[in-house]
Amino acid sequence: MKHVHDSLPPYVKVENGELWLTEDDRENLKISYRIKDIIFSEQSDFQHVMILDSYDFGRMLVLDGVVQTTSIDGHIYNEMISHVPLQFHPSAKKVLIIGGGDCGAAREVAKYKHIEEIHMVEIDEKVVLSCKAHLQEVSGNLSDPRVQFIYDDGVAFVKEHENEYDVIIIDSSDPVGPAEALFSRDFYANVRRALKDDGLMVCQSQSPIFHLDILRQTYTNIRELFPHVQVYTATVPTYPGGLWSFTIGSTKPLSLPETSTIPSDTKYVNEGILKQCFQLPQFLKKALEK
Amino acid sequence: MKHVHDSLPPYVKVENGELWLTEDDRENLKISYRIKDIIFSEQSDFQHVMILDSYDFGRMLVLDGVVQTTSIDGHIYNEMISHVPLQFHPSAKKVLIIGGGDCGAAREVAKYKHIEEIHMVEIDEKVVLSCKAHLQEVSGNLSDPRVQFIYDDGVAFVKEHENEYDVIIIDSSDPVGPAEALFSRDFYANVRRALKDDGLMVCQSQSPIFHLDILRQTYTNIRELFPHVQVYTATVPTYPGGLWSFTIGSTKPLSLPETSTIPSDTKYVNEGILKQCFQLPQFLKKALEK
Repeated sequence: MKHVHDSLPPYVKVENGELWLTEDDRENLKISYRIKDIIFSEQSDFQHVMILDSYDFGRMLVLDGVVQTTSIDGHIYNEMISHVPLQFHPSAKKVLIIGGGDCGAAREVAKYKHIEEIHMVEIDEKVVLSCKAHLQEVSGNLSDPRVQFIYDDGVAFVKEHENEYDVIIIDSSDPVGPAEALFSRDFYANVRRALKDDGLMVCQSQSPIFHLDILRQTYTNIRELFPHVQVYTATVPTYPGGLWSFTIGSTKPLSLPETSTIPSDTKYVNEGILKQCFQLPQFLKKALEK
Repeated sequence: MKHVHDSLPPYVKVENGELWLTEDDRENLKISYRIKDIIFSEQSDFQHVMILDSYDFGRMLVLDGVVQTTSIDGHIYNEMISHVPLQFHPSAKKVLIIGGGDCGAAREVAKYKHIEEIHMVEIDEKVVLSCKAHLQEVSGNLSDPRVQFIYDDGVAFVKEHENEYDVIIIDSSDPVGPAEALFSRDFYANVRRALKDDGLMVCQSQSPIFHLDILRQTYTNIRELFPHVQVYTATVPTYPGGLWSFTIGSTKPLSLPETSTIPSDTKYVNEGILKQCFQLPQFLKKALEK
């Protein structure tokens, strides 16, 4: 299925007869992906949305020219942001996902039978619809009746909810553009209010190598609001620096169940990974102790 | 200290008045680094050797246009290939490093007072001398009297040694060009012979994401030669895929000492990392079980 394009979308260029996407959001580092085909390309009210089929990473979601998730490694991020917090709350019934437009986190959460309601609040409907239609390796064409899609601003949404969710997963993009407010202390304070008394939250907290300042600020914000905080990491190949961090804030002490309930079809997470992901490199341990 | 170059070295280009190095060893993925300065650039008998000063990664060793190690993340790789095997052999006296021209592995090994001799066999003297002179963040300008530099072919060298080393560290570049023979079964067989009866070896075994076939072949080769084999991983930002693998082969069962002897000045490895690095992602566990 080859699409013919009279004019190329922004960010994609022809070089020597080949299509290439070059991420140019960083001043001093450029990553270029050779592209087989442009599957979807539209401007939404919030950002430019593309699904591209690449040679090395399969289909990719690209927002404003920056790769967000790919067929080859989307599962790593989505499994880590979902299964790790859910293992600490084995009786969760109601889960809120903020962001997560690729539907991968909701897909992982829906693997737990004991969860009754999954609210997914994503500001950009175009991201959800394009990923459901064209990025099924990540979204799984999610159609679980427990998942309710709410196209709204996550910041406004959590303000209006109190004592309602067992687990809140903040699956934001980078803290520029639509996602910037999802890294503020006020937002985390509202997240805490939206959680039940024994609830917990998790957020992606950027690269410990390239965005250590953001990670430390996130950790500090959450530590001021929650009595129990833990940072964990995973390697996500298409994110800058590879090493990626997540931060959990919890109202009750974090302890793993004796037997994990990780679904049997995961590709990255298992019981060993669940234990190892909290063991941080020395530089990161020291940076968080400061 | 700005160097003026009448003609640019290969691999470095001027774009919009800026210097850029673009790695083009991969067909479908290009990574470009913005360069401040060309510190060293010469053709050796084996490869083209450069030390470049980059904006995001500091100084980098670049062989045939491909980044090998950088000031910002060289310590991750070098600590992981050195301290992990040495923790399993706390009484090692004689260590052989094959490759490791950036001197980072030798620098880490030399932190153990109980080690009496460190033989470093590197085929390319130009790599060692340029890293000692111009890449001190990685090499530490290594000048420990226990380190003996031997400029020779590692494959030929191990053939001539028997029952001599406690630990052999194979710190090769990618299995193309000079390093190809360092991934062969014959070579590992000679490594085994060069080890003492209670010795162990470690090698870098490439990316589990992009070179899973090489990792599996390496694992199979070593498993056929050593009764005890274990794979471990670390995240090395400047290597493709971020996630990187190492494989240990040992004549005796691998068990960690009750108290680790990891030096106090490491930036990546600590006791937690030492335990977690053997916990492999599910896809990798399954790939190695086949």
